[in-house]
Amino acid sequence: MISKILIANRGEIALRIIRACRELGIETVAVYSEADKDSLHVQLADEAICIGPVRSTESYLNIESIISATVASGAQAIHPGFGFLSENPKFAHICKQCGIKFIGPEAGCIELMGNKAKAREMMKKAGVPVVPGYEGSIENELEALRIAKDIGFPVMIKAAAGGGGRGIRIVELENDFINNYNNAKAESMACFNDDRVYIEKYIKNPRHIEFQILADEYGNVIHLGERDCSLQRKNQKVLEEAPSVALKQELRDKMGDTAVKAAKSVNYKNAGTIEFLLDGNNNFYFMEMNTRIQVEHPVTEAITGIDLIKEQINIAQGKKLLLSQKDIFINGHSIECRINAENPEEGFKPCPGKIDLLHIPGGIGVRMDTALYCGYTVPPYYDSMIGKLIVHGKNREEAIAKMKSALYELIIQGIETNIDFQIKILNNVNFINGNYNTSFIQEMMVNS
Amino acid sequence: MISKILIANRGEIALRIIRACRELGIETVAVYSEADKDSLHVQLADEAICIGPVRSTESYLNIESIISATVASGAQAIHPGFGFLSENPKFAHICKQCGIKFIGPEAGCIELMGNKAKAREMMKKAGVPVVPGYEGSIENELEALRIAKDIGFPVMIKAAAGGGGRGIRIVELENDFINNYNNAKAESMACFNDDRVYIEKYIKNPRHIEFQILADEYGNVIHLGERDCSLQRKNQKVLEEAPSVALKQELRDKMGDTAVKAAKSVNYKNAGTIEFLLDGNNNFYFMEMNTRIQVEHPVTEAITGIDLIKEQINIAQGKKLLLSQKDIFINGHSIECRINAENPEEGFKPCPGKIDLLHIPGGIGVRMDTALYCGYTVPPYYDSMIGKLIVHGKNREEAIAKMKSALYELIIQGIETNIDFQIKILNNVNFINGNYNTSFIQEMMVNS
Repeated sequence: MISKILIANRGEIALRIIRACRELGIETVAVYSEADKDSLHVQLADEAICIGPVRSTESYLNIESIISATVASGAQAIHPGFGFLSENPKFAHICKQCGIKFIGPEAGCIELMGNKAKAREMMKKAGVPVVPGYEGSIENELEALRIAKDIGFPVMIKAAAGGGGRGIRIVELENDFINNYNNAKAESMACFNDDRVYIEKYIKNPRHIEFQILADEYGNVIHLGERDCSLQRKNQKVLEEAPSVALKQELRDKMGDTAVKAAKSVNYKNAGTIEFLLDGNNNFYFMEMNTRIQVEHPVTEAITGIDLIKEQINIAQGKKLLLSQKDIFINGHSIECRINAENPEEGFKPCPGKIDLLHIPGGIGVRMDTALYCGYTVPPYYDSMIGKLIVHGKNREEAIAKMKSALYELIIQGIETNIDFQIKILNNVNFINGNYNTSFIQEMMVNS
Repeated sequence: MISKILIANRGEIALRIIRACRELGIETVAVYSEADKDSLHVQLADEAICIGPVRSTESYLNIESIISATVASGAQAIHPGFGFLSENPKFAHICKQCGIKFIGPEAGCIELMGNKAKAREMMKKAGVPVVPGYEGSIENELEALRIAKDIGFPVMIKAAAGGGGRGIRIVELENDFINNYNNAKAESMACFNDDRVYIEKYIKNPRHIEFQILADEYGNVIHLGERDCSLQRKNQKVLEEAPSVALKQELRDKMGDTAVKAAKSVNYKNAGTIEFLLDGNNNFYFMEMNTRIQVEHPVTEAITGIDLIKEQINIAQGKKLLLSQKDIFINGHSIECRINAENPEEGFKPCPGKIDLLHIPGGIGVRMDTALYCGYTVPPYYDSMIGKLIVHGKNREEAIAKMKSALYELIIQGIETNIDFQIKILNNVNFINGNYNTSFIQEMMVNS
C-alpha cells in the first residue's frame, strides 16, 4: 500500500493531486524549483523539497533530483501530473529500477505511444482506424514528396516524437511541400531532439474527440465517454466540453469500443486518452494516445462523478477497477475553460506577474482548479495556464450559462488573461449551436 | 417575466442568489447597510443600494427602505434569502400590495406556519403526526402547569412566534416548570414581540430530520428527500447531511409523502421545509415548517442536482414544476459544515474582525459558499456564520473524507473560527458510525 506520494509537478495539477491524496489518507511530498518556493502546492503538501533552479531542465525535468527527493522523503510512488516527465519512458523506467511506483503505464507503453509512427502502426494492426498515411522511415525530401503525392494533398507532416502541437505542418500545395517538410524536421529536432517526421492525409476541419480510458493491472479496461477538444488555437486546447454535441449514442458507443480496443491492444494500464479526429461524415481516425492524466480531465469527472486521480492511485496500488462499462452513466454537461496568463490583444503573449486581486467564482456546479492566490507572482518560466474553470450543468444550455456567469464573476487583477476571449467564444452563435470544428477559433479571430 | 430581482439579504446567501440570477439572465440589485458597503454581494450585483445604518432594524429589517429601493431600481421581485424579512408575513403582504413579487409563499401561509401553535393545529387536521401537546391559549402559569402535568414531563415550552431556537425551554421536573415558563415568555417577548408560548411533550434525544419541498403555483408539490440536521448546539444547526443514515427507504417514502401532504394542506407555494422529530422507534412528528430557503439547502442540491434558488425564481415567475416525484433521484452523499466566526474555546463567543489570509478549498465535489475575501472585515453586527463548506461524495465515507480534507485545506486567518470544532465532529467515532441525535454535540463537548 502507498502511504506517501511525491508529486513531480507544479501549479494546479499538483494541488489537484494533493487533494486526491489527502482524501485517500496518503501523505504528499511537493517538489519545487527555486522560482516556486512560494507556490500553493508547496504550502499545501505535507512536505516540500526544492529540486533545483528555475529552469525546468534543472528542476521539474531533472530526473536525478526528483528520484533523490523521492528516496529521501520515503515516498513509495510518484505522480507525474501532465507535461514535464509524465510521458518520459526513461523516467518511468528509472522509477521502476529504484523500486518507486510510477503512477501511470509501463515505460514500454509510454515509449510505444510516444512514437507517433509506431503507435499508428500498432493501431492499424489492432484494427483501429488511422488517418491514411506513411509511417515508414523517410530517406530524403524527394522521397517525402513522392509519399505526399501518393497520399494526396492536403497532407500533414508531424513530428514522430511529437506532442502538444509542435513540429506540425499542414501542406495544401505540392509546391510548398519541401520547404515545410524541412521546417517541420528542424522544429522537431529543436523540440524533441529527434527529427523524424511522418506524413498523413490532412483531415480538413475535423473535430478533435478524445475518449478517457481507465485500465487496471488485470486487463480490465473501460472508457468514460468522450471530450470534445476541437476548440484549439495553434493546436493548443482552449475550451473543452463533454459530452460532444457531434456524437449520437451509436457513434459514441462505436468510438468508445474502439478506444477500449486500442488500449487493450497495447496492454495499457492506468488512466489514458485515445484522441480521434472525426470528419464531417462521422468517419473517425486514431490520432494519438496520451499516456497520462490530461488537463481537461475534470469535464469527464463532472459528467461521470468519477475522481480520475483517485482512480489512478488506486490502479497503481494494484486495486481492481470497481466499475465496469455498464456502471458508467453520463450525467448532464460539463465545460472547461483554460485560464491563461496571456494577452489575446497582443498575439496571446504570455503575461506573468503579480496577482493584485483575485476572486474565484463558486456556487453549485462550479469548480476552479488553480494554484493562484492573492499576492502570488506568476513566474515567467513555465506554462502560461494559471487555472481551469469547470462547470457542470444539467444540459449544455445550462452549462454555457453557468460558464458565462462564472467567467463574469472571476476576477484576476495585476496580469492580463484570456477571460474575455473565453467569453467571446461562449457568446459566439456557432459555438452556442455546437456547430464548430478545429478551425473555429482561427475563424472567429479572423471574423472579429 | 422577471428581469430584475432585488436581494433583501447580505453575505453568502446574497451571493448565492446573485449567481442563480446571473445564470438565468436576470439582473440583480443588492442592498446593504452602512456596515456592509465593502461586502462582496455589493460588488458582485449589477446594482447596489444602501438601505440604512448598521442596525438591522434600520436596514435589513427596514421594510419601507427595502420597498423604496425595489421601486427605485425597477426590480419586479424580491428574494428575501433566509433570516431577516424572509418569514415576515407583513413584508410579503406589502410586497404584494406594491405589485412586487415576493419570492416565497403567500403572506397568509407564512403567517400560518409562523404561528407554531396554529401550524400544529393545521397539521393535526391534515393527518400529519404532531408531538402530543397543547396549542390552545394559556391563561396563566398555573393553567400552564396543569397542562404540562397532563402531557407528562419532560415537556418543552416553545415560543408560538418562534424560530431559530429562541424562546425554547425544556423542563424535566415539575418543580422547575413555572420558572422556565415565565423565562420562555420573557425571551419570546424580547425576540419576537409576542409572549405566547405552547407546551408539548419533549421527545428526548430525537433526530432532527427535515424534508425539502418544492411547490409550484398550480398545486404540484414534490419533495427532494431529507436532510439530517441533528447536529445542533443550543438549537443552532452546526453540520447537516443528506441523506440521513437513520432512514431506510420505506421510512423516507413515508415521511416524504407526509411532508408533501403537509405542504398541500396549507396550499403551499415555492420552496419550503417540513421539519420532523424522529424518535428511536421510527416515530416521527411534525415540528415546524420553514417557509423560505434554508441555510443547509446545498446538501439537497448536491444529492439531487437541482438548483433550489433557480427553482424558487422559476416558481415565482409562474412556471410549472418540470419535475415530478419520480424524476427525483438521490445521488451519493453530501455534508455541509457551517463556518462561524466564533471561538469554541471561549463559549463560542463571536469573533468578528479582519481576514488577513484566506484560502478556500476546491476540487471535485467541494463547494464553499461564502462572501469572505482576503482583507474583508467581518462586522460584529450580524450573524456569525461566515461561510458554508459543502462536499459531495459517492457515499458517506467519501463525503466525510472529502470534508475533512477540505477543512484541513481551508485557511482563515485574522479571526477565530469553528473549523477545528468541525474537524472534531468529523473525527468522532459516533459521528462516523452515524450514531447520533440532537444531544450529540453537547455530549461530545462534555466528554472532550
